[in-house]
Amino acid sequence: MRIAIAGLGLIGGSIARGLTAAGHHVVGLDDPAVVRRAKRARAIAAAATSLEDAAGECDVVFLAAPPRANLRLLRSLAARGHRGIVTDVGSVKQPICAEAMRLGVPGFTGGHPMAGSEGSGFAASEAGLFQGRTWALTPGRHRRTPRALLALIRELGARPMVTTPAAHDRAVAFLSHVPQIVAWALADAALGDPVARRLLPLAGPAYRDMTRIAGSPPALWAQILGQNAAEVRHALAALRRALSRRSPR
Amino acid sequence: MRIAIAGLGLIGGSIARGLTAAGHHVVGLDDPAVVRRAKRARAIAAAATSLEDAAGECDVVFLAAPPRANLRLLRSLAARGHRGIVTDVGSVKQPICAEAMRLGVPGFTGGHPMAGSEGSGFAASEAGLFQGRTWALTPGRHRRTPRALLALIRELGARPMVTTPAAHDRAVAFLSHVPQIVAWALADAALGDPVARRLLPLAGPAYRDMTRIAGSPPALWAQILGQNAAEVRHALAALRRALSRRSPR
Repeated sequence: MRIAIAGLGLIGGSIARGLTAAGHHVVGLDDPAVVRRAKRARAIAAAATSLEDAAGECDVVFLAAPPRANLRLLRSLAARGHRGIVTDVGSVKQPICAEAMRLGVPGFTGGHPMAGSEGSGFAASEAGLFQGRTWALTPGRHRRTPRALLALIRELGARPMVTTPAAHDRAVAFLSHVPQIVAWALADAALGDPVARRLLPLAGPAYRDMTRIAGSPPALWAQILGQNAAEVRHALAALRRALSRRSPR
Repeated sequence: MRIAIAGLGLIGGSIARGLTAAGHHVVGLDDPAVVRRAKRARAIAAAATSLEDAAGECDVVFLAAPPRANLRLLRSLAARGHRGIVTDVGSVKQPICAEAMRLGVPGFTGGHPMAGSEGSGFAASEAGLFQGRTWALTPGRHRRTPRALLALIRELGARPMVTTPAAHDRAVAFLSHVPQIVAWALADAALGDPVARRLLPLAGPAYRDMTRIAGSPPALWAQILGQNAAEVRHALAALRRALSRRSPR
């Protein structure tokens, strides 16, 4: 198949590597330096001149830029009347799925691969990133995920899981967004205490595992948490209640 | 050297395996079934009939029972006027160090290997558990750690780090005790939400890493958190403030 990927960061770069390795023709869109790097790494076959042109020539379009950029890209596809298969990889599904519905992008299916790493950018991408991972899919009005998209996700080694945008956003608030905030808060609290900071070598594997993602890109996370703010606040309130119940008297 | 170990659980069992492998003569004390198992596994050379008897014949005594049991064992050593090298492996250092001072156990040095696993009991023990880990030591009145104890800790592959009981307890509240409470609370919150619970396959590696220790033995943790309640409450308050600062508006 011919695949267009907008955004060649950790996720988009890994999709590009995986689908190129699987024999597909992948064109990529990103800053010129990133595209050059992706071509040198043979992650993509060619650079796309514009998303609209690439979309017209491709079977499937992946929007893998940060959340707000994906919304802009979706609008420009809608403006061109694009009717092919489009998906995204963002961590929040209600805003982009609602926008696709509103704009009338009939081929849009929301997507969210549950994979990542504490690294970021194309440098951290790898073909095997999605191996064994769940890949959430939130199809549009017809509740049907295009077969071509399901096939590509399976070729990347992931397990598709179909749900609704609302259920997805509620669940990832508990399973991904609050854990991210907790990782920051654990590190903030420990590093903010002069004694704990001085005795940081006492930290065992549990502390390291639990603060590993504290280095994730803050600007990207600000967009994710902003898009899912209501669900995140709800899940944080549940976490605070659980903390109280588990605290020593 | 001749070593006595009271308590052959995850930590005591791992010390026994490591020191036996290093060529020392290790005697163990625990329930008969556990001692039999440790002998069959060649983790210990022999069963001790009583801690007092074993202590009289050994160069170093490790108290590796749960915190409250260690306090009882320390009192029985003090009652016999034991003057040899004694250490413990508990997660809180002020109560047992204060008790050793009060009772006059001149050879006592508090200890806390920063290693563990989500498993528990002798079945989870392994000779390499302490490899590359920090081992906190809180020496008594003379601020000197016995050389024989330092040598044994290094033979287990650990890095000794000397500090005070108060600094240790403050630091581990941030680096170990609050992370344990947070792991429980994250799991409680997610499993308590019907949508997140249903979509649990969406959990990625971060959630799994951050809730891995939620299965740690609750009875042992109740003792640890009870012994360090003031520092844990202080660190939890710092965590709550950090959570607020990191939350979406």
